[in-house]
Amino acid sequence: MTRTLSETLRVGPERVTIRDDDSGATPGFEGGKKAAASALAKLAKPVSDLQERLYAESRVDGRRSILLLLQGMDTSGKGGVVRHCGGLLDPQGVRVTAFKAPTEEERRHDFLWRVEPHSPEAGMIAIFDRSHYEDVLIARVRRLADESEIDRRYGAINDFERRLTDAGTTVVKCFLHISYAKQGERLRKRLDNPAKHWKFNPGDVDERRLWPDYHDSYKIALERCTTSYAPWFVVPSDHKWYRNWAITTLLHEHLAALDPQWPKTSLDIDEQKARLAQS
Amino acid sequence: MTRTLSETLRVGPERVTIRDDDSGATPGFEGGKKAAASALAKLAKPVSDLQERLYAESRVDGRRSILLLLQGMDTSGKGGVVRHCGGLLDPQGVRVTAFKAPTEEERRHDFLWRVEPHSPEAGMIAIFDRSHYEDVLIARVRRLADESEIDRRYGAINDFERRLTDAGTTVVKCFLHISYAKQGERLRKRLDNPAKHWKFNPGDVDERRLWPDYHDSYKIALERCTTSYAPWFVVPSDHKWYRNWAITTLLHEHLAALDPQWPKTSLDIDEQKARLAQS
Repeated sequence: MTRTLSETLRVGPERVTIRDDDSGATPGFEGGKKAAASALAKLAKPVSDLQERLYAESRVDGRRSILLLLQGMDTSGKGGVVRHCGGLLDPQGVRVTAFKAPTEEERRHDFLWRVEPHSPEAGMIAIFDRSHYEDVLIARVRRLADESEIDRRYGAINDFERRLTDAGTTVVKCFLHISYAKQGERLRKRLDNPAKHWKFNPGDVDERRLWPDYHDSYKIALERCTTSYAPWFVVPSDHKWYRNWAITTLLHEHLAALDPQWPKTSLDIDEQKARLAQS
Repeated sequence: MTRTLSETLRVGPERVTIRDDDSGATPGFEGGKKAAASALAKLAKPVSDLQERLYAESRVDGRRSILLLLQGMDTSGKGGVVRHCGGLLDPQGVRVTAFKAPTEEERRHDFLWRVEPHSPEAGMIAIFDRSHYEDVLIARVRRLADESEIDRRYGAINDFERRLTDAGTTVVKCFLHISYAKQGERLRKRLDNPAKHWKFNPGDVDERRLWPDYHDSYKIALERCTTSYAPWFVVPSDHKWYRNWAITTLLHEHLAALDPQWPKTSLDIDEQKARLAQS
């Protein structure tokens, strides 16, 4: 029996390892760049059809929605996924939120305060470029909160995601996994190309120096927050073509599992046809 | 000399006429459906390149943005434009707002109160599916406000759009013009197709009966609110392929006129390369 990609990439309850040499793998995909581009293009129609059904369903009686959450080190390709996977969707049904460093006002609230308003409404697909996980990642590495507060947050995240899923949101959490070497290569490319200089932030090098701390923090976050209702998926992301195909496939599998249906109308269609004919 | 499509479709200061028999025209385009689809596909790359530059520029010193505003009768294809034109853009740089009937809270504020928060931030393209113009369209037809209040709104809209443009937003206002017959045909198609029943609202037939009142209201709104800084464009929309091509072309022309540039970095690139090499 073939496993779905969701089954293949899902983080199990066992101890999580994030190994640099896994980041170039392409689990569940036979073939290379060209085949992946063509497989991705083939997903465009089914994904956007399912999206339209999800939206339609919500207009009548649905409450279901999707939250696609992207986390990963700098240059892991969160923006690329928004462009290549999110770009297949009808913009009417997508909301992208990029979480930056919290503002002063946001810091004066619980860390989930700024996240809640961006959770998807029924029928919609929300994409988070970074998320509340930053509050147990950079916050842990940079000691922006003390240990007991960080510790509290894992449980708070699980409760929050439980509430979202109970309320009808399918939460798909992807860790875009790249190697240390690949990040170095991509940062260098930014510096080599004047059209990419604006993307380069000197702080990226400072964060890069803390790579082992970040990996520890990711490992803990994945272990403590991979749940039956909102599991983590580790997506090897050294190959952009694999990453784009894989996350689009995860989205497709989750949409297909929802199996949204065109809503049945309660209208008398013949009566409406008659009214229209008279107008 | 060839006129740009913006020049061709722009509503001049002269008296506005909206004639049913103009809605099937294809001004500025030679060819039919197939040629238009291929011309649209060719716009994808330049439009998304310009969008990325606009975004990049804003990260450093830009304040410029675009507001693409769509108005038109039911079935004129506002949603189709979001899908086909907005779908060419990187979702990271787009915000779509669909303005529905105002909520109770919104009605207790000035009509522009709910619009302001959705005006685009620097670097972004905002798309309005309906807009503040509803407050001089359905509001006038349905007498949701008295005459002097409607009258006040045209000036308030012009002041608001002047402020947006002064602050760096290019406002592109498109009236999707369809004929009465074409609307009837499209509503009938919705009733004939069970997968489209959810899109049919019996109220659409009620509004259709007020077609002449809506046309008067559009005519007045276009006349009073086509300004040098935020002109209206009338886009014949009986042909979906023309409509999609035309609005994408208007967007492209406006983006190209902004001519956004990759921002120059103030960083010492060699220094950053050295830092990266040491990391």
